[in-house]
Amino acid sequence: MIKVSVMYPNKSGVRFDHDYYRNKHLPLIASKMGAALKYYTIDKGLAGGTPTSPPEFVGMCHLLCDSLASYHSGFDPHAKELDEDIRNFSNQMPVVQISEVIVENSSKR
Amino acid sequence: MIKVSVMYPNKSGVRFDHDYYRNKHLPLIASKMGAALKYYTIDKGLAGGTPTSPPEFVGMCHLLCDSLASYHSGFDPHAKELDEDIRNFSNQMPVVQISEVIVENSSKR
Repeated sequence: MIKVSVMYPNKSGVRFDHDYYRNKHLPLIASKMGAALKYYTIDKGLAGGTPTSPPEFVGMCHLLCDSLASYHSGFDPHAKELDEDIRNFSNQMPVVQISEVIVENSSKR
Repeated sequence: MIKVSVMYPNKSGVRFDHDYYRNKHLPLIASKMGAALKYYTIDKGLAGGTPTSPPEFVGMCHLLCDSLASYHSGFDPHAKELDEDIRNFSNQMPVVQISEVIVENSSKR
């Protein structure tokens, strides 16, 4: 399984509408990707490594897919529309990373 | 629920032993944290946003806890020992971020 992590840097002047992200943007991704997307997670940045340090990323999502091929087959045909929706919740472009999922959920082993 | 994301930057010259990370370091964290840790996930960086770009992070783990208080109660008493174990698998110090979990697993809703 692979994970596509989409991470919005917490830069000075960053705008990020967490409600839109949760209620509109991720459901839009899910509806476009269909069965190619197994599930997603959403994180809201609270702090860095110490309680008073700022988080590295203001918001993140992680898209879980069976394979890189299934991710691309589901996402790429809608990439333009999905990328254009970013302006509706943020003035930042995300850092994107593709990872191999080594452990999905340690409590399930 | 909160998520502590521990992310190792993919810098030039980075050393990262994925086997040690999976088989020793994360089980050590779990054994020390006990019930304060609900579960963890592990990611291995494959690529950036395009197939030929490098991943931002060479490896990551995400620690899921009921609250920030429960995380600190489980982790802090063992922080020194756990931090010292990093040298056994990497020459990098991680970026740490604490997030509020907005959606844990969209397929469960």
